Parts: sequence; C-alpha cells; structure tokens
Amino acid sequence: MTGFFFSFDGIDGVGKTTQMDLLGQWLEAQGHDVVQCRDPGGTSLGEALREIVLHKTEHSIGAVAELLLYMSSRAQLVEEVIRPAIAAHRTVISDRFLLSNVAYQGHAGGVAVDDAWQVGWVATGGLSPCLTFVLDMPVERASSRLTRELDRMESRGPDFLNRVRKGFLNEARQHPDSFIVIDADRTIDEIQTDIRSAAKRVLQTPLDEHLGEVQP
Amino acid sequence: MTGFFFSFDGIDGVGKTTQMDLLGQWLEAQGHDVVQCRDPGGTSLGEALREIVLHKTEHSIGAVAELLLYMSSRAQLVEEVIRPAIAAHRTVISDRFLLSNVAYQGHAGGVAVDDAWQVGWVATGGLSPCLTFVLDMPVERASSRLTRELDRMESRGPDFLNRVRKGFLNEARQHPDSFIVIDADRTIDEIQTDIRSAAKRVLQTPLDEHLGEVQP
Repeated sequence: MTGFFFSFDGIDGVGKTTQMDLLGQWLEAQGHDVVQCRDPGGTSLGEALREIVLHKTEHSIGAVAELLLYMSSRAQLVEEVIRPAIAAHRTVISDRFLLSNVAYQGHAGGVAVDDAWQVGWVATGGLSPCLTFVLDMPVERASSRLTRELDRMESRGPDFLNRVRKGFLNEARQHPDSFIVIDADRTIDEIQTDIRSAAKRVLQTPLDEHLGEVQP
Repeated sequence: MTGFFFSFDGIDGVGKTTQMDLLGQWLEAQGHDVVQCRDPGGTSLGEALREIVLHKTEHSIGAVAELLLYMSSRAQLVEEVIRPAIAAHRTVISDRFLLSNVAYQGHAGGVAVDDAWQVGWVATGGLSPCLTFVLDMPVERASSRLTRELDRMESRGPDFLNRVRKGFLNEARQHPDSFIVIDADRTIDEIQTDIRSAAKRVLQTPLDEHLGEVQP
C-alpha cells in the first residue's frame, strides 16, 4: 500500500465535504489508511489563521496579505500533516489546496496568477496532489445551497464568485492531468461515481508518476 | 519635499528603536513628515500576526510557515501604511523589513535565500527601502543588553543568532547600495552620527533613483 494525495476544490456550496467523505469511506473500504484535512487549517497554527482570514471582520486584509496567510497555513499543513502522512503510506484527502488561492486571490482577486503559483511552490516545497477534483456548478446554484452564515470569501458576491469559477475552469483546461472538472449539479451518487473512476485511474498508476518535488 | 523610506535591521538588542527614534526626530526637525512603523505589525492584521509569530508558544511554526506569516503582515503594511505615506510625500522609517526574513528564516532558518527574496517581492510588490541601516554588534553583547522577557526569535540561542548576524553582513556585502552596516557597539551619539550622514546622502539624491518597482 502506498500513500496518495487527493484534494477537492471549487466554490463554496458545490458539495465538497459530502463528496470527500464518500471518497474517504470508499478508499478506507479498499484498505487505504485515509487522512482527511482542510486547507486553510488542519494544524494549531492553521486553525488560528483560518479564524483570522475567514471570520475576523475587524481586520482589513488585502489580496496579497490574504494569499500569504493561506500560504502560511498551507506550509504548516504540508510539513506537519501531509508529508508525514504520505511518508507513512497513508492516503491524504484535503478540502481545498493551492489551486484555491490561484482561483480566489489570483484569477478573481487580482494577484498575478504566476505569483500565486510561485509562492505556492515555496509554501509546499513543490508538493502537489496526485489529482484535484474541481466540483463545478453555476454560482447561483451553489450559493442557494449554502444555509449557514457566510464567511469572508462566501460573502463576496456573484461577480467575484463567477471569476473564481472561471479561474478554476481555466486552470483545469491548462493542467488536465492535475485537475479534473466534475459536474456537481447532479445527484450525489452520479458525482461520486465519476470521482471514484478518476481516483481509480490514479490508484492504478505507479506512485512516482504522481507525487514528487514538482518544479514550478 | 518628497517621501523617502528607511528601515533599521539587525539582531535584537543592538539598539534599533533608540536609533530610529533619533533619526525620526532629526528628520522631523528638517521638515520631513515622518511615519514610524514596525514590521511585523503596524496594521490591525499585522499586530494580530505579530502576536502569533512572536508570542503564541502553543503553535508549532515551521520556518516556511513563519516566513509566510511575516510576509503576510508585510504585504498589509505596505498596502495600508507605507505606500500611502510615500505617495503623500511622507518619510517612512520601519523597524525591520524584508531583510529580516532573509537573515532569520533564510540564512539562519534554512529556507532558501532566493525563495525568501522572491516571496518578498510578491509581498511588497517590489517596494524596497531607499536605505536599510544594519546595526551590528557581537551576539553576546546584544543579548546581554536585552532585559525584557525574550520572544520566540530572541530565545533561539547564540548559534542561531550568529547565523542571523552573518546573514545580515553577507547580504550587506552583496548589496552595498541598499544596506549599510553600522557598528552599533559604540556610544549612541557616534552611531547616530554615522546614520545621519548616510541618510543625508540618500536625501540629496533624486527620489526616483531610490524608490520604485524593483524587479527581483
């Protein structure tokens, strides 16, 4: 058994948590030792930063400072959780990863997309998921499914979120081996079926073709 | 009157605060509208991050996450305080800036020095001080002058601080136009005299030769 690394991404409300839980159960049933985490968060430092960046409305936070806060949380998550898990042959599933910053602060927030990737490379030491599932649906559909109180990102309105969505789709077109777009406006089972068949293809490929210190 | 940007750097205990206050008074007396700030800190977000990175011992923080936390604070400081001040023809004096990360997390902490500069360029949008005063003295001398409770950086011990000091001196040798080393193991007046004469040379040079969107 070897350790794999998957992440889920997409705008809020597309059903990431449900789908990643189902994928985790399926992987466990197949004998994988699964570690689920969330980005930002997942460590003591990361949860403190998550609180600041998503819920502390008293701070003014520009797009670059915001990007770097997420990156700091991610650097700690990679060092403290993801790398040790993979080294121990566990399979990691992360709720969001670097691609989120590229879409939110880059494509939608005005930070240069190349800068977001470049800083991300420093933050992660070049570690990237074997495969990222980009769950996609129209912004108005996703937003209508959010019943809890909105956080700083969710409350930025449809224009911003449409730019985020386009950013995800744009990156997926450019990097089809790394990011797979899943139509999330279907039943839970239909979506999960597509996710599992994409995951299967990854699990059947030798690990050293996926993970590694990828140069930017 | 135009706006200039100076910073003070060096290990803790070398007398940065005393010297930057004296320089500020001298600049004010010459008609400059002076803004003093500290990095990390200087904004609502920055002070919250400063608290985490210097005083929150409950969090485990790796060198890369630490670097990125400082960078986030700095990005907000540049956007919210330094750029508006310079645009309004004020003169900024910062207690530490990007060079600190290059020395502490780079030279001493094991992060690649080029990565520290590169991320710094994203954080600051390429803005760098007209001149940085690197106050220098032996580590044991500087440490013996610290009477308050030590923070996370200060308590890392003499080996780490000697690497930081060497990092500052190394960078100053490589970039003599940007960083000037001042022997800080002398009287307050002697040190300030050297600082003022270096500052004078900067103030006599047209501003567009100093400030600008420097490429990395």
